[in-house]
Amino acid sequence: MTDSAAQLAPLPDFPDLESHVRPDDHQALRLWLRLLSCTNLIENEVRSRLRAQFNTTLPRFDMMAQLDRVPEGLKMSDLSRYMMVTNGNITGITDQLEKEGLVERVKVVNDRRSSLIRLTPAGKKAFAEMAAVHEQWIQTLFSDLPDTDRTTLHGLLGRLKSSIHSQLPSLA
Amino acid sequence: MTDSAAQLAPLPDFPDLESHVRPDDHQALRLWLRLLSCTNLIENEVRSRLRAQFNTTLPRFDMMAQLDRVPEGLKMSDLSRYMMVTNGNITGITDQLEKEGLVERVKVVNDRRSSLIRLTPAGKKAFAEMAAVHEQWIQTLFSDLPDTDRTTLHGLLGRLKSSIHSQLPSLA
Repeated sequence: MTDSAAQLAPLPDFPDLESHVRPDDHQALRLWLRLLSCTNLIENEVRSRLRAQFNTTLPRFDMMAQLDRVPEGLKMSDLSRYMMVTNGNITGITDQLEKEGLVERVKVVNDRRSSLIRLTPAGKKAFAEMAAVHEQWIQTLFSDLPDTDRTTLHGLLGRLKSSIHSQLPSLA
Repeated sequence: MTDSAAQLAPLPDFPDLESHVRPDDHQALRLWLRLLSCTNLIENEVRSRLRAQFNTTLPRFDMMAQLDRVPEGLKMSDLSRYMMVTNGNITGITDQLEKEGLVERVKVVNDRRSSLIRLTPAGKKAFAEMAAVHEQWIQTLFSDLPDTDRTTLHGLLGRLKSSIHSQLPSLA
């Protein structure tokens, strides 16, 4: 893939955040609107499929995904950081999932004030079913992008992430 | 920029959606989690600055941004498509902004059932102030990414968008 090839790739006009980009808009702003459009497209589709096929929401799915990867459980504050949302949102979702028997709160030894949240066996099972289907959805949405383009895109987004973090040291 | 350079770029471990990616996760899923992490980083930062500096929310800013680019106004349904959110959300934000004198509803000639939403002069002025500052934020967040990388990234995200749309023909 060359830069010029990417530049010349024809892009039909879909009605979205990019539709009213002006020629004099700066490159960073155009790039941001395209990044956001791609994310919104995928997120909206995943959200609607999770609702239709699993009667669940994206924040619930995201929380279960994080917990699935740390079997010993996560503190509320860590969960919030990994999910990139505020603590307030986490509490409500945890309460819901706990009521449904999908997660449980476990006391931390030597720290009476905080507890770990972890998936129950039922939660692990429910998540495994959703995760397999979810991964299929993502693979399908990316399927027209050749492997080399994916690798390059992954690398460039890594650089973007570093750029953002270097400007926001408080996040590091 | 070469593919291998992008692959080799060191990426510190920030606590986010990517933190628990496993070696055996498929490339598309890893790419999606990185895309989402970048978007969330920027969106969370913009959201918190809009609140702190302009006492406003991201959906309000996004709606005003779309309206600013179409001076004659937009129907609720078009606005919803451009903003990539559901109609329900739009109604509430429109009501708020109308109450504050920042947008107005205008009757459409020959179509009694629908109206156009457009910025008032006060709305245009308020948005112009926010937009200039917002663009600075975005430029700063992208500032460590060289121009050639931005061009390549813009092109690749264009291809990704086409890939998504080819899998979701209902969105076209």
